[in-house]
Amino acid sequence: MQPDGELRDDGIQVGGDARQRFYDSRGYGRPRDGNAISLTPLEAAHLLFRGDLGAVSVDGEDLGFEAFFVHAAAVQDRFAVRFLVYADLRDRGFYLSPTREGWPGHDRQAGTDADFIVYERGESPPSGGIAHRLRVVGERESIPAAGLAGTTLAVVDEESDITYFETAAIDPAGGTDYDAPQGITGVLLADRVVVWDAPTDLYDRGFYGRPLSGRAATLDGALQLSLLEAAYLAGTGSLRLTETLALSEPVGKGSTHGGVSSDDDGSAAAAIRGRGRAVEGKKFDRRRRIYRDLRNRDIVPKTGFKFGADFRTYLDVGTVEDLPHSEHLVRVIEPDHAFVPRELSLDVRLAGGVRKRMVFALTDASSIDYLSVDRLTP
Amino acid sequence: MQPDGELRDDGIQVGGDARQRFYDSRGYGRPRDGNAISLTPLEAAHLLFRGDLGAVSVDGEDLGFEAFFVHAAAVQDRFAVRFLVYADLRDRGFYLSPTREGWPGHDRQAGTDADFIVYERGESPPSGGIAHRLRVVGERESIPAAGLAGTTLAVVDEESDITYFETAAIDPAGGTDYDAPQGITGVLLADRVVVWDAPTDLYDRGFYGRPLSGRAATLDGALQLSLLEAAYLAGTGSLRLTETLALSEPVGKGSTHGGVSSDDDGSAAAAIRGRGRAVEGKKFDRRRRIYRDLRNRDIVPKTGFKFGADFRTYLDVGTVEDLPHSEHLVRVIEPDHAFVPRELSLDVRLAGGVRKRMVFALTDASSIDYLSVDRLTP
Repeated sequence: MQPDGELRDDGIQVGGDARQRFYDSRGYGRPRDGNAISLTPLEAAHLLFRGDLGAVSVDGEDLGFEAFFVHAAAVQDRFAVRFLVYADLRDRGFYLSPTREGWPGHDRQAGTDADFIVYERGESPPSGGIAHRLRVVGERESIPAAGLAGTTLAVVDEESDITYFETAAIDPAGGTDYDAPQGITGVLLADRVVVWDAPTDLYDRGFYGRPLSGRAATLDGALQLSLLEAAYLAGTGSLRLTETLALSEPVGKGSTHGGVSSDDDGSAAAAIRGRGRAVEGKKFDRRRRIYRDLRNRDIVPKTGFKFGADFRTYLDVGTVEDLPHSEHLVRVIEPDHAFVPRELSLDVRLAGGVRKRMVFALTDASSIDYLSVDRLTP
Repeated sequence: MQPDGELRDDGIQVGGDARQRFYDSRGYGRPRDGNAISLTPLEAAHLLFRGDLGAVSVDGEDLGFEAFFVHAAAVQDRFAVRFLVYADLRDRGFYLSPTREGWPGHDRQAGTDADFIVYERGESPPSGGIAHRLRVVGERESIPAAGLAGTTLAVVDEESDITYFETAAIDPAGGTDYDAPQGITGVLLADRVVVWDAPTDLYDRGFYGRPLSGRAATLDGALQLSLLEAAYLAGTGSLRLTETLALSEPVGKGSTHGGVSSDDDGSAAAAIRGRGRAVEGKKFDRRRRIYRDLRNRDIVPKTGFKFGADFRTYLDVGTVEDLPHSEHLVRVIEPDHAFVPRELSLDVRLAGGVRKRMVFALTDASSIDYLSVDRLTP
């Protein structure tokens, strides 16, 4: 014989032996006087769904699962998507509490926008270890990047399937030991720089640029540098420009940009930055900041174009001939960026498929933060 | 002893035995009087790079590869990126001609924006079989989707690496043999429809919706339909709504939208479309057109969320228990869409990684075209 519940102002009250039956042994609700408990509508719906509650009385009417579900969906925000995630985590064997004031665990989720506190397997409210501070997101909502680190996302897609993402603030560090020499000279051609006679180690050990003769394990001849690589090398004083050719035609969303001649290091850096902004806009400066930060962390950033990212990174390059697997894909975003769940899903899925970790680099003029996002099967 | 060339008004002229040496045997340039040929700057640069030309005289000055390259990059649009692709294809053993008026093959590339006619392996200008009508694109340029079908793209990324994409107009056709019955009733809850007592075959054979009880091979209980599925089934007269709940809060970029009650098929379709537009904007109608078109082609579209696409498609569903591999990822775009090369790279790479083909569905109110894009190693 299942007990029934009754909707009151502060939750769905269940009497009898509800405390032992639902709270103590299975982590539903919060204890009230005696053996009674209060349930949130979500918890009550789940117990109705499982057949563990008989009915819930709402305004004197006894509602079964379907009618109660429709009632709750009409009065509570995002009830259907939250129910799907709640039920999925229960199916996977977790106990979880809604992060509602006065509910178990509420005091331990400060600062997050979590919907649920999910306890570690085998742990229970109110003091069990926390596995996830979990936020439920419909696929049509957007997700601000700021403040996201540490939250687990459960994205419910339009067909009610759930994808989980774990987020974390990370502090990447590499071990690449190479400093480019001074005295390199190049020609700025449209949106790249050609160094006709580059030091072999610039490519072989520093993994700067790409040989003009195509893919090669060692450099033999001219080296092409990207604007980001050239801007970095000019900024450290390694690279000077002997010639700067104007863009003969627009090559991107910028527009034509007059040639700038340069004969000292400072103006080389300025000429390259100017070209970068002309072909890429403000995004160039954001990407340049991250490129520089990664190099300063002894990490080698190379283009992530083939993976749709800004960079793929190599933490520890000895020689290009013996290149390690690249560990991260990095996408550069602004700190006020909001993720579109479908695009986030695309980035993280691709990274996983090529055994890399997806990292978002949040940067404005004054700050840099790295946020990793991984798919998760709870 | 290599011959030299001379820059004239209509190309770089090379005399001596140039016709036999460069045109007849290797497909460079176009024949002129006697044994002379004309080269485009690109062809001349490549012959200089290989050491097959000694120098090119420009305004009385003999230029070697480096100086000629810088000269040509200053006067010709996108010279550096086109050179990289030209050299790469030559390295791969292809003969190719610039699509310049009067040059070999020019008359056979009508209607495309190709940069090169690439002949099949072992074939030569002017009449050899054509392997690719090839367009060179810098990664910062955008690529209009309209008129792209049939063109091979060579995208040169910021680090001068090249990714090739083959594009084609396709006409997908499936063999799924299921028609949903009449008389299904559902409840519109926020951005999905729940059918409490769905016919088993609606899921098991039609692969509509997702069981409320989670992933399952057969349906046992309530079925959740996406708004697209529900709109389609309401449009065919199969689905009616018994209840329509207002969005209690905005769930997407639309905004709150009042509940609409409906008691016949027509208004059910209208209510669902209205909800779709409220949560997704105009994109909903584009996606709905493609959903309907695919169903009409006996193809089953399901959400492509996990792959960052609009749909994954199953050409031939017998039963959900024995589901075939899904063949295509479909992204719905407007006919005036322009691809950003990095995003195109991301989509196509992901599709390849999960053994599917990336298809873009171009649609406005009056037309639907399907464009496949595949990575290619020439």
